Order: sequence, then structure tokens, then C-alpha cells
Amino acid sequence: MIGAMEERLARVALGRLAEPGDPRVAGLVAELGPVALHERLHAERDDNGLLTDMAARLEGMDPARDLDRAARLGIRFLIPSDEEWPTQVDDLLTAGPVQQRGGPPLGLWVRGPLRLDELSDSVAIVGSRSATTYGADVAADLAAVVGRSGVCVVSGAAFGIDQAAHRGALAAGGPSVAVLACGVDRAYPAAHKGLLDFLADEGAVVSELAPGCSPTRLRFLARNRLIAGLTRGTVVVEAAIRSGALNTANWASRLNRTLLGVPGPVTSAPSQGVHQLIRSGAATLVTSGEEVLEMVGAIGEHLVEEKRGPDRPRDRLTLREQQVLDAVPHSTSVAADSVARTAGLGIIEVRSALTRLQARGLVELTPSGWRLATLAQG
Amino acid sequence: MIGAMEERLARVALGRLAEPGDPRVAGLVAELGPVALHERLHAERDDNGLLTDMAARLEGMDPARDLDRAARLGIRFLIPSDEEWPTQVDDLLTAGPVQQRGGPPLGLWVRGPLRLDELSDSVAIVGSRSATTYGADVAADLAAVVGRSGVCVVSGAAFGIDQAAHRGALAAGGPSVAVLACGVDRAYPAAHKGLLDFLADEGAVVSELAPGCSPTRLRFLARNRLIAGLTRGTVVVEAAIRSGALNTANWASRLNRTLLGVPGPVTSAPSQGVHQLIRSGAATLVTSGEEVLEMVGAIGEHLVEEKRGPDRPRDRLTLREQQVLDAVPHSTSVAADSVARTAGLGIIEVRSALTRLQARGLVELTPSGWRLATLAQG
Repeated sequence: MIGAMEERLARVALGRLAEPGDPRVAGLVAELGPVALHERLHAERDDNGLLTDMAARLEGMDPARDLDRAARLGIRFLIPSDEEWPTQVDDLLTAGPVQQRGGPPLGLWVRGPLRLDELSDSVAIVGSRSATTYGADVAADLAAVVGRSGVCVVSGAAFGIDQAAHRGALAAGGPSVAVLACGVDRAYPAAHKGLLDFLADEGAVVSELAPGCSPTRLRFLARNRLIAGLTRGTVVVEAAIRSGALNTANWASRLNRTLLGVPGPVTSAPSQGVHQLIRSGAATLVTSGEEVLEMVGAIGEHLVEEKRGPDRPRDRLTLREQQVLDAVPHSTSVAADSVARTAGLGIIEVRSALTRLQARGLVELTPSGWRLATLAQG
Repeated sequence: MIGAMEERLARVALGRLAEPGDPRVAGLVAELGPVALHERLHAERDDNGLLTDMAARLEGMDPARDLDRAARLGIRFLIPSDEEWPTQVDDLLTAGPVQQRGGPPLGLWVRGPLRLDELSDSVAIVGSRSATTYGADVAADLAAVVGRSGVCVVSGAAFGIDQAAHRGALAAGGPSVAVLACGVDRAYPAAHKGLLDFLADEGAVVSELAPGCSPTRLRFLARNRLIAGLTRGTVVVEAAIRSGALNTANWASRLNRTLLGVPGPVTSAPSQGVHQLIRSGAATLVTSGEEVLEMVGAIGEHLVEEKRGPDRPRDRLTLREQQVLDAVPHSTSVAADSVARTAGLGIIEVRSALTRLQARGLVELTPSGWRLATLAQG
């Protein structure tokens, strides 16, 4: 218990010291552990025996006070050893950095009743701040369908698509989570204070930045990897060529999450980035919330996943996933459409099932196609 | 010369006897040749020694008069032994039927100065009759860019996307060809008489139906296979779920032509069929004429193809195609993205190059991926 508190305090302190998503810090934490890293930095002296800048900054910190203050504001700080930790973000440990950001978060500050360990089948809906009314309407519609099915919608808190996604999910009575690039006690943009307070009452507001921190461009880039990492799939609704939503999309691909894109008129600049994602094969085109749920494969699956025990990995699969798994050959690699033919199923559902089977470590994607992973061969 | 005329007359007669795209007739022509088939049908008697219906109908025909009349209207009838024959339609010989239509045409009736053997790098632009102004504008824009590059646009003559495609191509001074489901002397719809006359002056109007024939639903289905077969790639701009343009798209896929789709708002019914094509992976999303040309790989290639002689198949390839060909392994099959990594090229250009190399018989697509065809191994 004392060890856990020591680690929690070390993670708060390291989080204050480093910018979120600094891959060097993530690497050191993975190598040394947060407590040892914290101690080592704390003791660090320069050639003249004086405290280094970093050590001096650590001296002035009081992580226990930070936690107390946060608790008084109704904010908790989750670390990987907590039961509520959303373990899917640990996938960030092995995914290389994008634009100098990467690695799992040191911890997550959370405001709101929704438990983050319930986000494993959640869907990110992201896009342009400067959305068109078309984009905002479509985002709200998708989020409403996703929300009605009980699947949590995750987004930022920006104007445009982010706001429309929360609006749609909340209107449908669905759970919704905002991930911020500033402290969870802050409202950015200020106009969304009401939305964020509502989310903190009904869902959750999450950040790896301590309460009080301000948003910066770098912190938005770090935040984007969390949105992709927390969710099972990311839907991009309108993103101009240089939109930050494409950074989130990039993370979703890198983390082997399902990446989906909603098309729009080719004459509309905010759709250009999405069209590029679909055109390059990075994202699959979707036109409705039902298609999103189908592709992300979230419906009903959490029920299947509830089952626990020393069962074989196969036992926890849906019937469809078992059919697909049975169609993947033992000794060779084959293309997804070959699996589809063998299984007698459509290519879209087969691709989606293969991605889920891959996430469970049952199949592997090699340069020459899909094959059974060692786990599934037993 | 007499043999050629005999074959021409036999093909005119058989064309009058059978509905276009009757796969049984195409099979018999391939097996027996048109002259022998014509003679055999001509002589056909029933159990009582009377002429069968078919033989009786052949008795009443005068193919030489048909050719004369057509010639007086400025209409020529092409057969496979003609230098002007667009040999790419012969790919229809091996592609199985779709909706009971299939096989190469018995011949092609042509009105207009454009030579059909110049259509090998042409692009079909097809879509809904009930197009939106968005769809019509995009079709015209695409066709203008394609036309300006000197690549011929091929379409039907319907309202909506077909008409917009011709309008765009002609406005850009590009060549344009209409393929009809009725005789090339007829205007269907009547409102497009002016457009068809203009195309007959500047480009070409083509049909496998003899002059005077009326359009029917079956003939539109047969016509669609010609549009796909005459062109190197088909672009679908707006097609509702049951649109005939999806039949053309199906033929393009079946003939290993490049299939492209222009997205639109997900709230627009005329875009739903296109979205389905892209979503299923059958079509690649395109947003501009430049992307169409890039995907169809038509620019400048006809110059390369001009080169003739006993050279090896590799010699006629563009630099890019050679790079891709060199990256396809000899003994195993690999996925396109593996080829892309080996070649150090983008996946889109690699996919497009692989399709072109496949059309030239240099690579093969097996269930487990791409591999060198025997032709390229020498």
C-alpha cells in the first residue's frame, strides 16, 4: 500500500517535470520504474556537486499536496496498478513516437463518475474545429447511434466535431468522455465550460496533465495519442489536410485500432483529409453509426468479455470470430479475401473480425497476409 | 477480302438475331466462328424438315443492305479483324456473365471520326440519371481534367452524370464517346439529339445494336459491359443503391479495370452506391481528375505504347512500372504493401502499377497475394 502510494507520488512528480508524451521519459519509466527514476532525478547533481535544474525543480514539488487538492476538486489520479486503469493505453508502450510524442501516460487525472476501465470498447469521434453544419450533423448522428448502443464516445472538447460528438452521445443518453490537453479543472475553450461540467457529472473528463495546467500545441499532440489509445476505433468526421484529427488517426493506425472515415463532398476542404485517409487505405469509409459499431465490433462483445476464468482464448470469441479464426490457415499466410472465401463471409466483417482476433493475439498479420498466432495453434 | 466481308455479313446477321451480350451466342461464336455459326443456323430445320424460327428469321435478313444503309448514314461496322477494332473489349471473352449478359460484342456500329483503337487508355465516367447538381458539377470537372490531358472520356448518353461527363470533356476540347443501348442513328433520350450529333461530329457514338434498334432494359445492361470493357478505368460519380452505374462498376472490377468512386455527403442517396463500392474495397476513392489520371495511369503512356517491335514485355514499361515489377518476388506471393515497401513507393501508385502489370500479363494476383507471371520470369 505504501509502495503504491510511493509510485503514485513519483508519477505525479514526474508528470509535473516532463511534458506529456515525452518518449524519453516513458522509456526511462519502463526501464527503471517511476519510483527509482524519481529518486535518481531527485538526487541528480552537476559536476560541481550542485543540484541540476531538474533536481531543483523536483525539490520544489509537493505531489501529496497536488493529490489532496485534486481530491478536494473531485479529481482522482489513476496509475497502471489501479483496478480502474484502462489497460489498452499500455499499447502506447510499444508503438513508436509520432511528431516527438509517444509512450503511455504517467497517470490519468479523471473528473467524473465513469470508470475508465469501461472504455475498452469505446469509440473516438474526432474531426475539425472548423466543421461544416454537414459534418457536425453527421458527427452528432453517429455519436447518438453509438451512444444508444451503450458504447462510450470519446473525443476532445473543441468546437466543431468534438462538441457535436458529445452532444449526440449525451442526447441519446449514452456515456461520453472528453480527453483534454490541459488540466481537467480547466475549460478550454472557455465556451465549453458547461459541456465539460456536464461530462464531469455524467461521464468523465480525462487528462494526463495535472489540474491547473494550460493547453499547448505539444499537449494537443500528446492528447491525441490518448484518444486513439483509450478507444477501440477512431472515426474521423471532417478533417482538413492539416487537421489535428489526422494526428489522432495516425495514432489509431499505429496502435492497430480500427480507423474509420466519413466522406463528404469532394468540393469541401474539411473533408479532404478524410478522403486522403480512405484513399490511401488507412481508413475504411463509413456512412452511419451502425456501420461504425459493426466495424468496431463493440456491440454485445463486452458481455462476452465479462466471462473470466482459465478458459482457452477461443472460448471467449463470438460465433463470427470463431468462424473467421477457423478459416485462417495454420501453416501459411493468406489475404483477408481468401479468409473471407473460406469462411463464406463478407470481406468487411472478416477484416473487422481479423483485426479483433489480432488484438487478442490469436492471428498475426505478416507481409504476406494473415496467419494463426502461436497462441491460437494450441 | 471476301472472307472478311463474309464474316462481316455473318456478324451483322447474328447481331440482328440475338440480343446483345447473349453469352450463349458469344460462346458459339468463339467455338465455331461467326461464319460457320451463321451458316449452321441458316440451315437449321426442325424435326419435320421445316426451317426453325431462327433460320426463318435469318432468311428474311439482308446484312449487305444493312451495311449499305448504315454507310449512307455515315455509320461503319467494326469487326475484330478490323485494324480499328478496340482489342480491349476481347477481355469480355473470358469474364463470366453478369445478370445474364456477357461476351465480346459481335461487332460495333460507329458514327463519328474518332477511331475506336485509340480508346485503350480511355476513362469511363458514369453515374446516376438523377444526379444532384453536386454530382453533375464534379463529373463535368473530372471529365474536363481528363479531356484536357487528351484522354478520351466514355459514357452513356443519359441525363445526369453521363451528360455532365460529355459536357465537361467537350468544353475542355477533349475527345468524348457515347456508348448507346440503341442504334447510333437514334437519340435516346430525345433531348440529347444535339449532344449525340455533336459527339458524332467530334468524337464517336458507338453501339453493338444495328441502326434503328430501340433501347431496352436488357440492352442497357449489355451496353454497360461495353463501357467498362472499352476503357482502362471506370469512375462512378453518384449512384444510388440500385443504379445501373453499379452494373458498369461490377463489369469494370470483373475485367480487372481500375474502379474509382467519387464520394459525396453520406446524407445524399445518390452517393450511397458509390460509398458502398469504396467501403467494400471494390473502388478506390478519388476526388479530382488528376487523381483519376494518376490511378488510371493513362498520361504519357500511349507514347510509351507507340513503341512496337520484338522487344521483351518489360521494355515497354514506364520506369515506375519497372520499379514495381522488380519488387514483386519470383517464387512467393506477397501483399501489395509488401511490394510497396520493397519498391520504396506509395501503396496507391504500387496498386495502380500492379493492376497495369497484371493487365499486361506480367504479374498475377493469387489468393495469397501478387507474384510474377510466367511471362515476366524469362
